[in-house]
Amino acid sequence: MFQLPTYDDVQKAAVRIAPYAHRTPVLRSRRVNEQLDADVVFKCENFQRMGAFKFRGAFNALAQFTPEQRRAGVVAFSSGNHAQAVALAARLLDVPATIVMPHDAPAGKVAATKGYGGRVVTYDRYTEDREEISRALAADHGLTLVPPYDHPHVIAGQGTAAGELFEEVGDLDALFVPLGGGGLLSGTALSARALSPGCALYGVEPEAGNDGQQSLRRGTVVRIDTPRTIADGAQTQQLGAYTFDIIRRDVDDIFTVTDDELVESMRIFGSVMKIVVEPTGCLGFAAVRKSAARLQGKRVGVIVSGGNIDFDRFASLLV
Amino acid sequence: MFQLPTYDDVQKAAVRIAPYAHRTPVLRSRRVNEQLDADVVFKCENFQRMGAFKFRGAFNALAQFTPEQRRAGVVAFSSGNHAQAVALAARLLDVPATIVMPHDAPAGKVAATKGYGGRVVTYDRYTEDREEISRALAADHGLTLVPPYDHPHVIAGQGTAAGELFEEVGDLDALFVPLGGGGLLSGTALSARALSPGCALYGVEPEAGNDGQQSLRRGTVVRIDTPRTIADGAQTQQLGAYTFDIIRRDVDDIFTVTDDELVESMRIFGSVMKIVVEPTGCLGFAAVRKSAARLQGKRVGVIVSGGNIDFDRFASLLV
Repeated sequence: MFQLPTYDDVQKAAVRIAPYAHRTPVLRSRRVNEQLDADVVFKCENFQRMGAFKFRGAFNALAQFTPEQRRAGVVAFSSGNHAQAVALAARLLDVPATIVMPHDAPAGKVAATKGYGGRVVTYDRYTEDREEISRALAADHGLTLVPPYDHPHVIAGQGTAAGELFEEVGDLDALFVPLGGGGLLSGTALSARALSPGCALYGVEPEAGNDGQQSLRRGTVVRIDTPRTIADGAQTQQLGAYTFDIIRRDVDDIFTVTDDELVESMRIFGSVMKIVVEPTGCLGFAAVRKSAARLQGKRVGVIVSGGNIDFDRFASLLV
Repeated sequence: MFQLPTYDDVQKAAVRIAPYAHRTPVLRSRRVNEQLDADVVFKCENFQRMGAFKFRGAFNALAQFTPEQRRAGVVAFSSGNHAQAVALAARLLDVPATIVMPHDAPAGKVAATKGYGGRVVTYDRYTEDREEISRALAADHGLTLVPPYDHPHVIAGQGTAAGELFEEVGDLDALFVPLGGGGLLSGTALSARALSPGCALYGVEPEAGNDGQQSLRRGTVVRIDTPRTIADGAQTQQLGAYTFDIIRRDVDDIFTVTDDELVESMRIFGSVMKIVVEPTGCLGFAAVRKSAARLQGKRVGVIVSGGNIDFDRFASLLV
């Protein structure tokens, strides 16, 4: 059964997550607006629980487990924000969580995942396949696998961020969204098409990994090698089946930005707006800065997807 | 005529600044609360216009100029946030502003002050006295001098930040406030005593410059050499006449923290709470972390005074 989620699913997700997720702030900067000659609003998911939008989708998926699924537990594979999101959602819903992470994952991320109560299973990223391991764990122990993006419940949950944004600011002329596997972009599309039908919707990828752009232009999912980019949340190799179908239908275009442009946006976020944003979270703003000439006088939305970055790394990228 | 400002003055200041100042957000962090076993609320003046609470006091002072004073203009001396605050308030009120800054002030700060429309007059900090220059400019050109902290209108303006905090969160058990010349602390005291009389009120200074602590304990204003500390907003040599009288009357104690403790708090603000805070803005939180044992189970407020720091310097302090 392959049925695309709808805005109705986003609305139901919003009700489910409301008691647990933060309604994150929408920030504006006069200085940024003066520089760009536009009215830019930033939906700041770096202030979401566990530091990224991923909590929305993970919680929405786990909240729909049957009692049997809850008892048996959840499994997820991720070296990034999805791991922490599933671990935290599982703790809140009293579901045992197993997270499959590479054996050389940063100690901080392993610690954060364990801190949320997740059991961490490591694998060798050079010789083992994490999906296979996860599916084997699921089969052997009756665990339910929650994938990082290509799942209707995950997509609907991610769509709640843009839902809140449009509720708060009304119509926009354009909205820029970070693009990795497409969970955030496709969920955003559901909200945007329902709440601001005339809003141009753009995904933004790292230049080193433009599989989404290629896929949209060719009309079929293009798979690439893992790209080398500081935007670790967008180091995905391909879009999903659900996410691609929604993106193909609802997204106007996909742009790319370089790592240097991400660092420059990270610097402006920090120095002008006083917020810490991870490289992946800078994708939207970097594309807005690049497209500034075409955006003059427009109302522009940017989804800031997260703020989780090893802080030594954050500082070293900026010096 | 020497009359201390009152909470009534703070309320009037709040009305004056409301159309121009941001009502800054009050942030909480579950992770911080779990670590400290307390309920801590952060009043985030790093999100204030020009990046610090100083805008409140400067605007409140300039808004009370007579038509003649407005036409003639304002003069202020500062190498820091007060310069930008006066320049921005003056621009908004259409008052010509002259800012006296050391000839070796950071280019970024000079540019920011000029960016707000201020005329910058430089002096040699080794051979010239900035107060003397400012008073001469005031006398020669009929300018009105707005001092950085020791003025009833400035103090009343700074008190509006704590006013908003108490309005939003209700009573607190304790409130920690950065202390330099005492404008923020004395203004905060007016609001705290009116809105949460049982709240313990603490000033926090850099250990290298504890003139406030010495003054409170001796019962008279103690002057020190300019302290060496990364908390550049608290490199003041002594409290003012107004600020000391209010602090002596209303403040329970003054604590000190080291530069290393400021950096550690700056790191937690960045990595856990995703906000950029300048060293001076970390004074309150650093003291809370130091006093954690005594604050268990309490409702604790922290005033985060600002977020203006050269970003290369920010990064270099953290690597």
